[in-house]
Amino acid sequence: MKPLVSIIMGSTSDFPVMEAAAKFLDEYKIPFEINALSAHRTPGEVERFAKGAEARGLKVIIAAAGMAAHLPGVIASMTNLPVIGVPIKASLEGLDALLAIVQMPPGIPVATVGINASLNAGILAAQIIALQDEELADALKKHKEALKLKIIKANEELSRIQFTYKVG
Amino acid sequence: MKPLVSIIMGSTSDFPVMEAAAKFLDEYKIPFEINALSAHRTPGEVERFAKGAEARGLKVIIAAAGMAAHLPGVIASMTNLPVIGVPIKASLEGLDALLAIVQMPPGIPVATVGINASLNAGILAAQIIALQDEELADALKKHKEALKLKIIKANEELSRIQFTYKVG
Amino acid sequence: MKPLVSIIMGSTSDFPVMEAAAKFLDEYKIPFEINALSAHRTPGEVERFAKGAEARGLKVIIAAAGMAAHLPGVIASMTNLPVIGVPIKASLEGLDALLAIVQMPPGIPVATVGINASLNAGILAAQIIALQDEELADALKKHKEALKLKIIKANEELSRIQFTYKVG
Amino acid sequence: MKPLVSIIMGSTSDFPVMEAAAKFLDEYKIPFEINALSAHRTPGEVERFAKGAEARGLKVIIAAAGMAAHLPGVIASMTNLPVIGVPIKASLEGLDALLAIVQMPPGIPVATVGINASLNAGILAAQIIALQDEELADALKKHKEALKLKIIKANEELSRIQFTYKVG
Amino acid sequence: MKPLVSIIMGSTSDFPVMEAAAKFLDEYKIPFEINALSAHRTPGEVERFAKGAEARGLKVIIAAAGMAAHLPGVIASMTNLPVIGVPIKASLEGLDALLAIVQMPPGIPVATVGINASLNAGILAAQIIALQDEELADALKKHKEALKLKIIKANEELSRIQFTYKVG
Amino acid sequence: MKPLVSIIMGSTSDFPVMEAAAKFLDEYKIPFEINALSAHRTPGEVERFAKGAEARGLKVIIAAAGMAAHLPGVIASMTNLPVIGVPIKASLEGLDALLAIVQMPPGIPVATVGINASLNAGILAAQIIALQDEELADALKKHKEALKLKIIKANEELSRIQFTYKVG
Amino acid sequence: MKPLVSIIMGSTSDFPVMEAAAKFLDEYKIPFEINALSAHRTPGEVERFAKGAEARGLKVIIAAAGMAAHLPGVIASMTNLPVIGVPIKASLEGLDALLAIVQMPPGIPVATVGINASLNAGILAAQIIALQDEELADALKKHKEALKLKIIKANEELSRIQFTYKVG
Amino acid sequence: MKPLVSIIMGSTSDFPVMEAAAKFLDEYKIPFEINALSAHRTPGEVERFAKGAEARGLKVIIAAAGMAAHLPGVIASMTNLPVIGVPIKASLEGLDALLAIVQMPPGIPVATVGINASLNAGILAAQIIALQDEELADALKKHKEALKLKIIKANEELSRIQFTYKVG
Repeated sequence: MKPLVSIIMGSTSDFPVMEAAAKFLDEYKIPFEINALSAHRTPGEVERFAKGAEARGLKVIIAAAGMAAHLPGVIASMTNLPVIGVPIKASLEGLDALLAIVQMPPGIPVATVGINASLNAGILAAQIIALQDEELADALKKHKEALKLKIIKANEELSRIQFTYKVG
Repeated sequence: MKPLVSIIMGSTSDFPVMEAAAKFLDEYKIPFEINALSAHRTPGEVERFAKGAEARGLKVIIAAAGMAAHLPGVIASMTNLPVIGVPIKASLEGLDALLAIVQMPPGIPVATVGINASLNAGILAAQIIALQDEELADALKKHKEALKLKIIKANEELSRIQFTYKVG
Repeated sequence: MKPLVSIIMGSTSDFPVMEAAAKFLDEYKIPFEINALSAHRTPGEVERFAKGAEARGLKVIIAAAGMAAHLPGVIASMTNLPVIGVPIKASLEGLDALLAIVQMPPGIPVATVGINASLNAGILAAQIIALQDEELADALKKHKEALKLKIIKANEELSRIQFTYKVG
Repeated sequence: MKPLVSIIMGSTSDFPVMEAAAKFLDEYKIPFEINALSAHRTPGEVERFAKGAEARGLKVIIAAAGMAAHLPGVIASMTNLPVIGVPIKASLEGLDALLAIVQMPPGIPVATVGINASLNAGILAAQIIALQDEELADALKKHKEALKLKIIKANEELSRIQFTYKVG
Repeated sequence: MKPLVSIIMGSTSDFPVMEAAAKFLDEYKIPFEINALSAHRTPGEVERFAKGAEARGLKVIIAAAGMAAHLPGVIASMTNLPVIGVPIKASLEGLDALLAIVQMPPGIPVATVGINASLNAGILAAQIIALQDEELADALKKHKEALKLKIIKANEELSRIQFTYKVG
Repeated sequence: MKPLVSIIMGSTSDFPVMEAAAKFLDEYKIPFEINALSAHRTPGEVERFAKGAEARGLKVIIAAAGMAAHLPGVIASMTNLPVIGVPIKASLEGLDALLAIVQMPPGIPVATVGINASLNAGILAAQIIALQDEELADALKKHKEALKLKIIKANEELSRIQFTYKVG
Repeated sequence: MKPLVSIIMGSTSDFPVMEAAAKFLDEYKIPFEINALSAHRTPGEVERFAKGAEARGLKVIIAAAGMAAHLPGVIASMTNLPVIGVPIKASLEGLDALLAIVQMPPGIPVATVGINASLNAGILAAQIIALQDEELADALKKHKEALKLKIIKANEELSRIQFTYKVG
Repeated sequence: MKPLVSIIMGSTSDFPVMEAAAKFLDEYKIPFEINALSAHRTPGEVERFAKGAEARGLKVIIAAAGMAAHLPGVIASMTNLPVIGVPIKASLEGLDALLAIVQMPPGIPVATVGINASLNAGILAAQIIALQDEELADALKKHKEALKLKIIKANEELSRIQFTYKVG
């Protein structure tokens, strides 16, 4: 089994945030790997990883980092695979990481999701892979249906709340 | 009894914030309904709700959402009823939700209140309905008087605080 | 003819921004008035205006101000009519005016629209008045249709742009 | 004993923040009063207070408020006494209150201090009063000396921290 | 020729910004289409577009919008294709559009690029399509090389600038 | 004639902004002086100025600076006279200067006015001096009346604007 | 033993943040001193310190302060030694301190590190001293290697996390 | 002549901003070099540059970049020389570049100067080099004196401005 998605994080302390991406990929049976690599502390390893990613069969890279979050952009500069960036909230409410990831210069895009939005990074990776995998595409459609059902159930809870002038 | 106001929230987890709006409407005997609908997860339900709102006799819609808060704007795009938007504080101190609700493009207004300001959303809805309901208009006047009395009472508390050079 | 909507602005220099609201009301035949009143420079006049608004038959007040924009909130504190606040961009990209208008304390709502969004203020006022005026309600529906047609026409423009790999 | 300084706050819940101002005035024997008045909930009382302030012998007004903090500006619009504004941190880290107080339009200044900086408001009031009270001016000089001594003492604490390569 | 990428913008006035994406796709021979659709003014058209996108053979959608930019998120809620969001700078330096696009709730990702970063949106779309198109993958590698050469050429320019103490 | 107010600015390039303060003081016959002193480039001169200010008969200091605006705070640390700070807009819309002036630590207040709000600094200085100068106090009352008249006149302008449904 | 680095902080309450700088210098055997000095409360002591720093053999000054953080800039204005500024997070998430330190006017630089980034201040000081101390330069290279090893170890932790579709 | 300082910029379009650093180094006879290197477009060249910098005799690196400005941090991760970061204003008033440069993770400092503050970067580099070059140290002292004289001259200009109540 070769991984299709690689989850890279700047520090293992980001794992509690990134776990949701891993769980989503696992649930949808998308082979993945997880590594901690730092754009600043292990630049050589980052380079080796990024330059070899395509040849190893990876399709999407999810890179998470906080503060002056360079990891997603640095990886994107060394591969042509789509790189999904997850800004980690570590300071300034995560605004520094968001801007350091999303505001990439012309030529090197990073597909940025919301602050700490690791689940959405997993889903976006799956959507990209699903372009070549009909079974996965079907599973994602069911996932969307499931989201809807959750809301409908939530509505039932609300319907049990009692007020004198509440209708329905 | 048909509802005049509909409180819509993106997720049931917003209910603790939105309860103040419900309580205010209840206290002022304005029939209302509460539902959870998500602009992103149940777009079909949102459409059905918004397009049918006027015909069902609703007068005002209160829509609450956090983060990239699209719900109030999406509803506003499908009805001509006044839509009151409540930005929920879920990230970035609520600034993302505030901007995503208030900065609507020309043509589709959302009447935005403050971050988590659910009580004010309830009062604003009541003010709009009171334009056709003199009894309610009178009740709102009394409510404003009551606010004043609360401040005056608070003053009495302050008058009991002792300092050597405090006068009065 | 008695005005139903009153447009108040902190300074006549705000008129170029507020003109869109006036034009919209005019086009939809909603009687209105325009005045310059300053929460800080003419507090007495503001009070007289706000306290007398309801008795004069006004239904909605549109108040525009920039910087530490107190006008909408101060008016809202002295009337139970719905007050629509328009933050004028005069400094800090308009963020100061937006926060000074929207972040009202519990009890006194201001229905805030976007920065310089005077047209949306006019439409919101019309939506509120339309609750008691079926003809206006119908006109607003047509206005929404017209917005759609504009977009559709815009699309035709885009369809004339030529690229080798552009389809359609 | 007539008060020279009046501390006004938008809500009694602001008292824990404003206590430092009261304590400073008390320690420096400056007669003062404390009241809760809301620009939005008791506009009439605010007007009565502001218009009568000078005649009652007040010299400085300290006004504290949070969120869309209009109180200091509204008072400043109705008196020529210097008004010191204290932004209370209630939302958005206090940035909304700071901007709503400091960004006053030309003609009506508010002497703004930092977010929750009630002690500095008390000192600033004392500095203004000291212009006519030499004894107080001398006491403030001693206060400044005392601040210095505190830092010097703090230094002694630091000098007791041990590191191998720490000198002195 | 069926389009693989669809460029959607909230208004034709966004075309000057979005042209770079179109040009890139054209240069790399990726069939695409361009349309103006508004989440708020043409919600029905948006729905029809989003729900039919996959069946029409589209692989990636690029959606651009300004202010309270709901278009990318609304489309993402109705398709499982990857949606790339481009925040258009129309107010608040583009920060409102960025937050309204990137801060999507759990379940519905939008692959956000920088403010006005339409070229990067085109490249990201190409990277996703290149996962199934080796020829395109090779072309993108050459594009990255070309970026490098531009910098190297720029360096030659710098080397011609003369200072007394400048070396090389 | 000895100056009562001293206007200090970090650089002569701030004079066009600070001119309004000078003109106001001149019009109200308050003797003043103007100097350029830099907290960072002429710290010795700043110290001499600040420490000698009270003895020279000054009553109020107006200090203006941009960017990391230290001048008002540094002066305030060396005098017990009230110091009015004017944040000059030189970068980041003036937000850096505002925060660097207003967020003073406990013990050393700066009476901050709005960004570039030099006129308000002049008025605030006059209000402080008027506490000991009845004639000036009267003049300031007239100034406030004049502000009101300006607004009333502006209103007349507005009343001449013609719309079909405009009333009054 | 004469100190090469001086750590100055605005208040002893900053010591828990600044301890990391002290520990780093201690571990790398760089003689240092620690003092509390306030730009605002002990300006005389700050001046004496800054003007005498070079003659006492100091090579680098680390200055930490929060809020309207003037200390680093004020010291920099009175010495030609490199001054490293550490913004302390005390309000507004530390953004006020960051801007008040980094946005220095032309002529007086402060080498600013991140919010609360005291360790980085220590390392930067060491890097500057290492320009004249080969042994230290070698030690810093080993430190960088050690950072890398930490990440590699962290990776081993991650490799032990089990998912069904996790590879490696 | 071997360069002691290297000025690196992300793009030649940054040269007009960075020219002030070059001119300062030139005036103070500090040998330097200028290159354009992009963290994202020429990562290999950046690595070669950073890893070889110390051996080539460089003492300080000045790195300038805009938007998601990774260049200074990426260089700092591959050398132990002090790296001075200059945030270039290209979007969001330069706030994105500032945060992306200054908020570096623990272990890898960047000595950040203000937005577009290229002159200060040059001076800071000179201050570091002056630690080993007494002649340069003396020249920098004279530079500081010259700054003072400029202010004093500016004062003379101000003294020529005439007002009736202006003293001196």
